[in-house]
Amino acid sequence: MSDDLGGRLRWYVPDAYLPSESSHGVPSHESACLLNTGARNARVRFTFFFEDREPLGPVELVLEARRTRHVRLDDPDALGGVELPRGVPYAYTVDSDVPVVLQHSRLDTSAGAYTLFTTIGYGE
Amino acid sequence: MSDDLGGRLRWYVPDAYLPSESSHGVPSHESACLLNTGARNARVRFTFFFEDREPLGPVELVLEARRTRHVRLDDPDALGGVELPRGVPYAYTVDSDVPVVLQHSRLDTSAGAYTLFTTIGYGE
Amino acid sequence: MSDDLGGRLRWYVPDAYLPSESSHGVPSHESACLLNTGARNARVRFTFFFEDREPLGPVELVLEARRTRHVRLDDPDALGGVELPRGVPYAYTVDSDVPVVLQHSRLDTSAGAYTLFTTIGYGE
Amino acid sequence: MSDDLGGRLRWYVPDAYLPSESSHGVPSHESACLLNTGARNARVRFTFFFEDREPLGPVELVLEARRTRHVRLDDPDALGGVELPRGVPYAYTVDSDVPVVLQHSRLDTSAGAYTLFTTIGYGE
Repeated sequence: MSDDLGGRLRWYVPDAYLPSESSHGVPSHESACLLNTGARNARVRFTFFFEDREPLGPVELVLEARRTRHVRLDDPDALGGVELPRGVPYAYTVDSDVPVVLQHSRLDTSAGAYTLFTTIGYGE
Repeated sequence: MSDDLGGRLRWYVPDAYLPSESSHGVPSHESACLLNTGARNARVRFTFFFEDREPLGPVELVLEARRTRHVRLDDPDALGGVELPRGVPYAYTVDSDVPVVLQHSRLDTSAGAYTLFTTIGYGE
Repeated sequence: MSDDLGGRLRWYVPDAYLPSESSHGVPSHESACLLNTGARNARVRFTFFFEDREPLGPVELVLEARRTRHVRLDDPDALGGVELPRGVPYAYTVDSDVPVVLQHSRLDTSAGAYTLFTTIGYGE
Repeated sequence: MSDDLGGRLRWYVPDAYLPSESSHGVPSHESACLLNTGARNARVRFTFFFEDREPLGPVELVLEARRTRHVRLDDPDALGGVELPRGVPYAYTVDSDVPVVLQHSRLDTSAGAYTLFTTIGYGE
């Protein structure tokens, strides 16, 4: 693959939600999966949106060159100490200083079996 | 994040369906998840399409600036009193007067376990 | 909503598959969900691609103006008599003479619970 | 359908993961589903990205003209002998010398029921 940068500078995910319940010892969770195929580290900033309160953030992370990072959104350590509420609809954007690609996924274990969903975000 | 408006003015979701059955005390449902990252409130209008009858709508809602809204499509109170039929294939569009982003999701609990699906809509 | 036509003239779905097994009396199946928001009927043509044989089609259907149609891909009656094989990886394209939108979904009931997936197709 | 080439030359999938566990005798797996609707064979190259090590690849495959190929990412024979690790977050890109379309899917059987997810990749 060439070293061309690929991707977009801003990504949107309208349907984010951390289920309150879990089973099987596996917590229900979401991941913001980022890919930086370029030769420069990416400085990415998450902003979290809610239905009834002001946005939260930005939370800034580094995504190294030629690396992926699957950011667990239920893990405050992965988000600079920010703890997102469970059982509350939210949404988020990711801004980056170099082009990256974002895919959003959820694992819901609340009903005693796993269910997954995923989508590439909306990029601009 | 800058205050730039991001998104599109019209969104399309061809596969919508409210399952007739539910379990676990959790109704099978769909959500139209909208994100408005801009500084102005969005006036959004839903139009619902069917296989064998005229479209329904528009149903107009307000999506506040810098907010998300996860609109439950099985809830007449969330749709200005419109009750969508269960067990009937439908589709919908969302028009907005400012750019927004739409993601469509379904939770089907009919078979005694949860299954989810999601996709960013098709935006223009 | 205005009467503007919205959508694309060609859509691609690389991951199609009709599972061999079913349960709950609900057959595992896929649907090609089409939406025509315009004022003219759409003439749509499906072409099916395989791993090891020549493409099948085109299969031509009509999608009426301002209607959705959720085409069951396991139903020969919905496809002009064409019966797609179960348990065989395939893919398909949809060409239309007016802009439409395509979303592809699968319901797999083979393991005794439902699992769904969906994605907006790739449109050009 | 005309013989026009359709698709993109580079595709990105940020959320790839081969679960460690399986059940029902059906291994948890992922497929990179490619579609080449054109009249020329495609030479496609996979590159795999990780969180904490250098990218792997390229792995080169041929996708014949007017064919689909659902590449099992857990099968070294499908990837020129490359064995991707289970239980490790990864991502991948696909480059092609003619336009193709990529859809990524996962089947997770680890919890005793199936769950699927899918998305069209991000294409450029």
